[in-house]
Amino acid sequence: MQYTSFNPPARTLMGPGPSDISPRVLQALSRPTIGHLDPLFVAMMDEVKSLLQYAFQTSNPITMAVSAPGSAGMETCFVNLVEPGDKVIVCRNGVFGSRMLENVERIGGTAIVVDSPWGRAVDVNKVEDALKAHPDARFLAFVHAETSTGARSDAQSLCQLAQQYDCLSIVDAVTSLGGIALNVDEWGIDAIYSGSQKCLSCTPGLSPISFSEKAVQKMKARSHKVQSWFLDQTLVMDYWSSSESNKGKRSYHHTAPVNALYALHESLILLHQEGLAASWQRHAEMHTILRSGLEKLGIEFIVPEQDRLPQLNAVHIPEGIDDAKVRNIMLNEYNIEIGAGLGGFAGKAWRIGLMGYGARKENIALCLAALKDALKR
Amino acid sequence: MQYTSFNPPARTLMGPGPSDISPRVLQALSRPTIGHLDPLFVAMMDEVKSLLQYAFQTSNPITMAVSAPGSAGMETCFVNLVEPGDKVIVCRNGVFGSRMLENVERIGGTAIVVDSPWGRAVDVNKVEDALKAHPDARFLAFVHAETSTGARSDAQSLCQLAQQYDCLSIVDAVTSLGGIALNVDEWGIDAIYSGSQKCLSCTPGLSPISFSEKAVQKMKARSHKVQSWFLDQTLVMDYWSSSESNKGKRSYHHTAPVNALYALHESLILLHQEGLAASWQRHAEMHTILRSGLEKLGIEFIVPEQDRLPQLNAVHIPEGIDDAKVRNIMLNEYNIEIGAGLGGFAGKAWRIGLMGYGARKENIALCLAALKDALKR
Repeated sequence: MQYTSFNPPARTLMGPGPSDISPRVLQALSRPTIGHLDPLFVAMMDEVKSLLQYAFQTSNPITMAVSAPGSAGMETCFVNLVEPGDKVIVCRNGVFGSRMLENVERIGGTAIVVDSPWGRAVDVNKVEDALKAHPDARFLAFVHAETSTGARSDAQSLCQLAQQYDCLSIVDAVTSLGGIALNVDEWGIDAIYSGSQKCLSCTPGLSPISFSEKAVQKMKARSHKVQSWFLDQTLVMDYWSSSESNKGKRSYHHTAPVNALYALHESLILLHQEGLAASWQRHAEMHTILRSGLEKLGIEFIVPEQDRLPQLNAVHIPEGIDDAKVRNIMLNEYNIEIGAGLGGFAGKAWRIGLMGYGARKENIALCLAALKDALKR
Repeated sequence: MQYTSFNPPARTLMGPGPSDISPRVLQALSRPTIGHLDPLFVAMMDEVKSLLQYAFQTSNPITMAVSAPGSAGMETCFVNLVEPGDKVIVCRNGVFGSRMLENVERIGGTAIVVDSPWGRAVDVNKVEDALKAHPDARFLAFVHAETSTGARSDAQSLCQLAQQYDCLSIVDAVTSLGGIALNVDEWGIDAIYSGSQKCLSCTPGLSPISFSEKAVQKMKARSHKVQSWFLDQTLVMDYWSSSESNKGKRSYHHTAPVNALYALHESLILLHQEGLAASWQRHAEMHTILRSGLEKLGIEFIVPEQDRLPQLNAVHIPEGIDDAKVRNIMLNEYNIEIGAGLGGFAGKAWRIGLMGYGARKENIALCLAALKDALKR
């Protein structure tokens, strides 16, 4: 068999992620690999940490990137905090709430599921009812920005409820970080994870996480070992501890994905240079432009206006339109990727991402033009 | 705070990994990101799979890359195969045998540890004694090439014993794949994992794995759910299933690290072009050249000749020589990284890697010249 180097076309990525990536990030990615214990690399990891603290708006010392995709970040939060027998209120309004439930069950925790309709925010009142009904619950887990439906939940109110009912909050910010307001310390979030390939516009494969002091105390008070060696934060913390505090002597845990971290570093610098508030504002503005163009094409949003994520636009596939045909025309003739529906929305929805570097006017103009052409064919 | 793009120097990487990387692999890494469900990407994943089957010398259909480093590959093998209560013979002759033990314990398995001295191969006779003493053991786990000590174990004999005593074999090939003879099907290996950043000379962050038909049967017959959602092979298998067999409809599990897989694809093409036997031969030849140079400097090997790995040369730090000073001179003045000792060998050993693209005459000449200079300062 003959093999040749893979030369992908340049696509405009407007699906649910990976998002469009700045050339600066791809350049950073391919810089020369150095050792994962090289003092220069260790110093760069310190910068990644403080840039992530900025992105999350937190001063949590335990803020770092898991060396694996967002679903491993989710698992990191659950396996380090939840112990067998712990009761967890899991809010489910899409695919990723169900995945949280899977995590709780595989730990041997007890999950209390609070369902809200797909395409809507998590129902805060139903959550409060569940917290009242289960005074022994230890955790409240929810998804801030449901990538499967495009719905935004009120993370601030949910975290306030968690505090009021003496629960630790576990927040999925995979699609929210960098795209909409998110203030870890101000809102009192205890454990949070995100992904590199959404509004940070880095390549996929890393999961930023952060733990509050209360979460760290819970980890330290565990009576069972964390079931995963690879994701055990008590081991990884030493590896990510600041090069100053440990005089550059970092204990070896695993080999960090060196080049992927170069890329994350660069993408976080781009966010820092733009400014977090400016980035949130840009996502909101680009959403308005896209929305107006979609409405002109007669395309309707699934999520009611007040619950909509600007960075992930879930829309109904118009009556009589062939889902795959439209996406194939866009992909093959215009090199644009938009997302198909996931789970219960498969075949019924498109998901149009405006994430990070991808939230630009030229992308919107191209997407609308291609969609217009594809719809009438 | 001000942040600037990270511009690492070009280092010659001659430690225990990450190894030196071909410019072709770094170029592949930074090609345009496309969607992880893009038909072109799915076709590339099929090629990665068949190139990994070549590298492992196997026809196992379940051959893929875990989207995380080698220690996650280790955990994938253990959590998918070992169930609570299962008895596992764990061979320990270095750091990575201890990590296997950690994995078994965190699953709730029962580990029977067979210790062999650090810097020596696993003692095949002691393993047979343990298998005789524990007829209820279900698994035999060992490290083919101990990265912490530079010792090579007789994987073929150990796997033969596993079969004879009706155990499944779990083999750590992190440092062996591509560097020394390894024949998964011929030797009857049941579960094997490796790392991208050793003799494959790809960037760190991926872990190639392969499971035999017997291992797949064991997974299918499990009575407990796999404790990790992220590493659950029954879910990941669907994601990596061939694009032909499922008509290109690949079920979503997690977002693959797209660019990292471009790099792995390219590094596997390099191995395929050279040929596996030629690569093994080159590692052996380069080791001979390095050995002769080190002996001229009065530096002695830790591992007896018959147990030595060509790709990882563990040597005694000569009497009166300051470990850190020598490594710092080499790193800061010559931009060469060699490895420090790990675990029980910390401060006592250097580990000089000749892995993949790094196993070249120019690297050896430079390393010996720099070492010679550093030793006399």
